[in-house]
Amino acid sequence: MTSTTPTDINNRLWSQHIKNLTPYVPGEQPKLANLCKLNTNENPFAPSPRVAEAIVAALANQADTLRRYPSFESDELRQALADLHGLDLNQVFVGNGSDEVLAHIFTCFFVKDRPVLTPEIGYSFYPVYADTFHIELAKIALKADFSIDVDDYRRPCGGIILANPNAPTGILLARGDIEKLLKEHTNAVVVIDEAYIDFADVAHASAVELVKQYDNLVVVQTFSKSRALAGLRVGMAFANPSLIEALTRYKNSFNSYPIDTLAQAGALASLQDVAYFTTRCHEIIALRQDLSARLTAQGFDVLPSQANFVFAKPPVGLMNGNAAQIFAALREQGIVVRYFNQPKIRDYLRITIGTAEQNQRLLDALAALAE
Amino acid sequence: MTSTTPTDINNRLWSQHIKNLTPYVPGEQPKLANLCKLNTNENPFAPSPRVAEAIVAALANQADTLRRYPSFESDELRQALADLHGLDLNQVFVGNGSDEVLAHIFTCFFVKDRPVLTPEIGYSFYPVYADTFHIELAKIALKADFSIDVDDYRRPCGGIILANPNAPTGILLARGDIEKLLKEHTNAVVVIDEAYIDFADVAHASAVELVKQYDNLVVVQTFSKSRALAGLRVGMAFANPSLIEALTRYKNSFNSYPIDTLAQAGALASLQDVAYFTTRCHEIIALRQDLSARLTAQGFDVLPSQANFVFAKPPVGLMNGNAAQIFAALREQGIVVRYFNQPKIRDYLRITIGTAEQNQRLLDALAALAE
Repeated sequence: MTSTTPTDINNRLWSQHIKNLTPYVPGEQPKLANLCKLNTNENPFAPSPRVAEAIVAALANQADTLRRYPSFESDELRQALADLHGLDLNQVFVGNGSDEVLAHIFTCFFVKDRPVLTPEIGYSFYPVYADTFHIELAKIALKADFSIDVDDYRRPCGGIILANPNAPTGILLARGDIEKLLKEHTNAVVVIDEAYIDFADVAHASAVELVKQYDNLVVVQTFSKSRALAGLRVGMAFANPSLIEALTRYKNSFNSYPIDTLAQAGALASLQDVAYFTTRCHEIIALRQDLSARLTAQGFDVLPSQANFVFAKPPVGLMNGNAAQIFAALREQGIVVRYFNQPKIRDYLRITIGTAEQNQRLLDALAALAE
Repeated sequence: MTSTTPTDINNRLWSQHIKNLTPYVPGEQPKLANLCKLNTNENPFAPSPRVAEAIVAALANQADTLRRYPSFESDELRQALADLHGLDLNQVFVGNGSDEVLAHIFTCFFVKDRPVLTPEIGYSFYPVYADTFHIELAKIALKADFSIDVDDYRRPCGGIILANPNAPTGILLARGDIEKLLKEHTNAVVVIDEAYIDFADVAHASAVELVKQYDNLVVVQTFSKSRALAGLRVGMAFANPSLIEALTRYKNSFNSYPIDTLAQAGALASLQDVAYFTTRCHEIIALRQDLSARLTAQGFDVLPSQANFVFAKPPVGLMNGNAAQIFAALREQGIVVRYFNQPKIRDYLRITIGTAEQNQRLLDALAALAE
């Protein structure tokens, strides 16, 4: 079902535009023995134990928890998110993973006469959304070092979307540059997709605070990465009340209850365990610094990452620097990383930061392949 | 956030069509003391205890359950649904509640040059979807007794959708009539929304089996009603593999992982407890028969329901038969039913089948109001 070529493209019953879709292909979830899974940027650590406790507690009152509809406005969860960032309830939207939130954003703000600008290399779901909602996307080249130059975005547009830190490069765009975009494009919505922002170790990395100042900013975040809750499907957006209202109107015209009761309870509990969250994020940052240094020592060209993954180009001495072959050789040993067979990045591997043991296993395997 | 008039309709940043949406308004989830909640057709009984057991068991392996992405194809759950109905895996689609499944169906099959036919009185989300996806809906009048006459559907169309049993009437359309629609409209998709089908007490009520014969049939069902899992958000569609492929392609172009890991585990466990499910459905059917008879004895005109609710017109002797006033008077006592202020049905109340105690409380309250 993941094939991108429809088997039945001429089916008389399909709407025309379904025939032209090229669906997103998620990273594989392989069932290998001895699996070392470093391919989908999941958190290597379990979430706060309070998450499971809160879910079990909710289940203790089964009749109400399961048989009744969830809170369709997720007020409690949204209020906790608002409190976390010093915002008001009406500046927060939540959805069924940040992917659903992004889909709604494309519909609500990007269906315009002008193209939406996005970095040429970025989250690969953006072109899929554009396709799904018939939006023209203008892809802007990165600089040679894979960084974004906001001066390249000085052109009329129907909106801007970029991941920050960017995926799959891991490179962070400075908040000052984001403000330049917001000031330049006051009549377009600028979406900053901060799926990985909690792994940044520089001050003021997030743009969330700017929501108070700029009415054209939407910041997207997720519980899937830093909060280790990919299994629960909760994502969120922060913006001024009018943009949040648009998202809410669309949600209620599409699917009123996107987040189930247990996911709401679990996400809320995660927010309440601040110490756990902070500690784990610091651990992952330290592991990233260590892995980056040791990959560099093995001859890799490692981009400066502020995410929970590194994007790294293998040295010529390692299987002739052929990233596709290295990917395959690692996979044979149960070590799964991500490889994108695309222009400009096909010499790179994207490696999720694992536990110390997982990272060691990867480094050992790479060293063995180089022999 | 449930208001249907946008507060900021002239916002320069909204896409044009967001301004024209009229969102769905879900039944309220009131927080009243002594609440008797008979307004959103939730199951009065808890789900099978195996559901919570399965979720707790999944949580015992927290690291994998929560931090990892769910199965994005939900293969295990889909296979169990296929087995239940003697279908193949590729004849089953699952989504984030049947509302999301319905939304995808509108996009995949109803974006056509001709209007989609639907009963004038039916699930109130259908016109919202049509609006959301710019689909023309042609509403076909019901007969005087609120039943559907399939002969009224003999006209060119881009598709047909109807709830069976219908909402809010509870009236069942015979399977033979559904076959007439399928044979008449071989070039259009016919969607039978069976949210309440498990409460039907006549033989061969469901159209699921017809999926094997008719390539233009989609049957939608849900875990929210008969399986008492409204809180988990799981719905499904059954159709031939080509239609399922279209739904899957769209899902993967919108949100790859719509059902979280715990919801998948809970829904699967529910399917495995056949005895519990059957017993509870029979209990609700018996409670419906009892409530219908006793409302009739109080002078109500009760439509013949095959669902877990009744649609009933109060007698003139009860507050002059004013359904809106009766609704309000019941609500003051904590008894919440559903009232639709719409042409042709504004003299009726929709009452969810509760427990024996809840139904008794309702009947007592109505008797007291009549005094």
